[in-house]
Amino acid sequence: MRFRLLTLCAIGVGLAGFGCAQDAAPLPAETEAVTQALIESALQDQVGLRFVEDLTTEIGPRLAGSPQEALARDWAVAELNELGFANVRVEGFDIPYWSRVTDDVSITSPSVQPVAATALGGSAETPEGGVEAELVRFTSLATLIAAPASQVSGKVVFIDERMIKSMNGAGYGMAVRKRGGCAKVATQKGAVACLIRSVGTQSHRMPHTGGMLRDGAEGAGPAAAVSAPDADQLARLLERGPVKVRVNIQTEISDSAPSGNVIAEIMGSDLKDEIVLISCHLDSWDLGTGALDDGAGCGIVVGAAKLIADLPEPPRRTIRVVLYGSEEVGLFGGKAYAAAHADELDAHVLAAESDFGAGNIWRFQTGFGEGALAYAKTIQNILAPLGVTPDNNEAGGGPDISMLPGAGVPVVTPGQNGMDYFDYHHTPDDTFDKINPVDFRQNVAVYAAFTYIAAESGWDFRKAADDETE
Amino acid sequence: MRFRLLTLCAIGVGLAGFGCAQDAAPLPAETEAVTQALIESALQDQVGLRFVEDLTTEIGPRLAGSPQEALARDWAVAELNELGFANVRVEGFDIPYWSRVTDDVSITSPSVQPVAATALGGSAETPEGGVEAELVRFTSLATLIAAPASQVSGKVVFIDERMIKSMNGAGYGMAVRKRGGCAKVATQKGAVACLIRSVGTQSHRMPHTGGMLRDGAEGAGPAAAVSAPDADQLARLLERGPVKVRVNIQTEISDSAPSGNVIAEIMGSDLKDEIVLISCHLDSWDLGTGALDDGAGCGIVVGAAKLIADLPEPPRRTIRVVLYGSEEVGLFGGKAYAAAHADELDAHVLAAESDFGAGNIWRFQTGFGEGALAYAKTIQNILAPLGVTPDNNEAGGGPDISMLPGAGVPVVTPGQNGMDYFDYHHTPDDTFDKINPVDFRQNVAVYAAFTYIAAESGWDFRKAADDETE
Repeated sequence: MRFRLLTLCAIGVGLAGFGCAQDAAPLPAETEAVTQALIESALQDQVGLRFVEDLTTEIGPRLAGSPQEALARDWAVAELNELGFANVRVEGFDIPYWSRVTDDVSITSPSVQPVAATALGGSAETPEGGVEAELVRFTSLATLIAAPASQVSGKVVFIDERMIKSMNGAGYGMAVRKRGGCAKVATQKGAVACLIRSVGTQSHRMPHTGGMLRDGAEGAGPAAAVSAPDADQLARLLERGPVKVRVNIQTEISDSAPSGNVIAEIMGSDLKDEIVLISCHLDSWDLGTGALDDGAGCGIVVGAAKLIADLPEPPRRTIRVVLYGSEEVGLFGGKAYAAAHADELDAHVLAAESDFGAGNIWRFQTGFGEGALAYAKTIQNILAPLGVTPDNNEAGGGPDISMLPGAGVPVVTPGQNGMDYFDYHHTPDDTFDKINPVDFRQNVAVYAAFTYIAAESGWDFRKAADDETE
Repeated sequence: MRFRLLTLCAIGVGLAGFGCAQDAAPLPAETEAVTQALIESALQDQVGLRFVEDLTTEIGPRLAGSPQEALARDWAVAELNELGFANVRVEGFDIPYWSRVTDDVSITSPSVQPVAATALGGSAETPEGGVEAELVRFTSLATLIAAPASQVSGKVVFIDERMIKSMNGAGYGMAVRKRGGCAKVATQKGAVACLIRSVGTQSHRMPHTGGMLRDGAEGAGPAAAVSAPDADQLARLLERGPVKVRVNIQTEISDSAPSGNVIAEIMGSDLKDEIVLISCHLDSWDLGTGALDDGAGCGIVVGAAKLIADLPEPPRRTIRVVLYGSEEVGLFGGKAYAAAHADELDAHVLAAESDFGAGNIWRFQTGFGEGALAYAKTIQNILAPLGVTPDNNEAGGGPDISMLPGAGVPVVTPGQNGMDYFDYHHTPDDTFDKINPVDFRQNVAVYAAFTYIAAESGWDFRKAADDETE
């Protein structure tokens, strides 16, 4: 067993270029054998892929707070019961509700042309029938902020900033600022609406929706994203002279709509009060069927958990699968869970969320105590043959578990290849056919492996560097 | 010069695998030198690319018979005059007009989901508010034709046939049959509407519009195309049980709307009554900006003609550039031209139309008299260094000149690489950014070369095998 670990570690060394064997904690031979068998099974996964296929086919779009999200909860409860999970339940909460009714954008001068556009989540309405005004272009939110009100007042602002492609989605953080802030800044300067070049990385006439910042929506006017070819068209027209556009956004809002987290468990044996949490979010934006964002994540964690549930003996700790509600519109599910389970967070030994599509996992970050890094190495060594590179100890976890590290809960981030993720993210194109089954199953294998090890080993991932226990 | 031709022909031999040198007709050294200079200039083309950029930016979509098509004619007349062409004019005609007002398709059972769909050109209206009915799927038009009316009556028919990708667009002919015939056959069997999987080759939520057959529209009900992911979704849902859809199509029609062909010329010298016609169509479908279909074709022929117009001496024959109107809805421009110029068709020594996007030209077909094949070889040898393979003598010319060969007019078909053409064809995605400037300029070079040779050489491309003249 020690020899086996050394061998795997040698692979890890080759991939990552630094030593590890001396740091890995020993894993009982039986645990490792079961883990390897789980990986083999996961690479043939049917359950996880079928889960996302059925969810996105039978329910389709699942806007936070909508009747469709409620249907998805009912569907998931039935499905998880059918799969044999324990304690399947919904933990409900309410959210403020927003949905689009109309979001038409068109060029009205120098010629009449439709614009492929979508209202941003949380956008205010225009007057009925829309507003028509001259377009003024900025290349970033910063240049809009720096502009005098006289340049903007009475006009439609257009922020024409591009997003770069990257493996880890690094361009998103910068690009999303204009989505969050444009309408508020524009409104403060007297603009009648804001258009942004979509936060995305493709060149089809596919606008990307997405939420405005919560504080950005307060006191902000109408806002919509236009597709990349339409942004190009607007820019080309503005090079030629003045351009007028009409923006007509009508919405349905409500102070309170029902949402909820769907929870299912595999009860542990002698450490059943200790919880390994793996998660995803069940809601989606309304344009696509939420296959990559985040049906895939749900399929991955359900598929992985089902493989562990089918073992002859359950692992020592309880595995809790959480399908969060209302992630897209403000992490409501994650916050509700953290609040409802505040007293129980000490018993959460590990948490992870899959919410970055279905691309191959290429690196594995941990957020462990310094004294627990040997466990990180052990897990990373097990994952190396799946093409997963060891990574640093700076994992933040996913969006819905982002409040858990602050409460002391260790997290991991299995980093997916997100090079194409923002080609589909928040567009009508986020559909089941975009999931690559081979990559998806590699994700199931990674989740099955680390989840089982975390549940069976009894390891304390919080362990401080000077902690002598174990 | 003879040596040069032998050298070029040797390249042709290598590419095409058959001899040609003995067949090529000699080209005067001066003509060949000018042709080579035109090719060099064309590979740096600015005029042609700018023409399609301006047309698709400043006018945008140009539906046949619409005010936008009229604007495009005015724009083109001004632009062609500005470029210095002679006899710039519009030859008007009227067409029956159809445009979409509403084309909403949705799944209503087992869950409510939007469907990315577009009405087919010529579609009938549904009752106001739409029709809702059960969906019945067929894998081809043939299986629908073979089905008993009892299987179809009262339902929405769905023809779920895929189109294959190919260099020459070979899959289109087969795939388009369902677009032309579905509504009529479905209506005859009592169906309330017809949906088809889009005639296209991409997997985005981009439906492809296009005309129904003229005789298919008579007595036919409402018809729409759905995107490939939506067709997948409908098929997956039907595997699970009954599916209901709602189809709401409202249109605007008129018995007569103005359209027209825009014509510009380069007057020839001693053979100015003989005409070399190069063409494209100015109208487009309404969803995209008609960049590939067929703004590119117009840019290619205008760019090529402008290079010839800028020569110190005009060629011997007149070059006529025709930007046809209302191609998409039934070749109205082509038919009007053939009728209006019936008495002059004997003087048309060659015709070509660019209407297959902006992909690289990879082969060159002719439709010459048997006695004129040596001229084909000469032109093909000149084009070989541009990566163009000699091809057969079975050219049909493009759609708007398809009536000319029957009237004895020789044609050529410079065959473009159409592998990706049907990814964009008739979709919102047919926009300027999809044009590759390098490939576009190779097209300009090919058109400039054969157009100049045809105009300057005085050759008779009609020549019969036993014709001794020249």
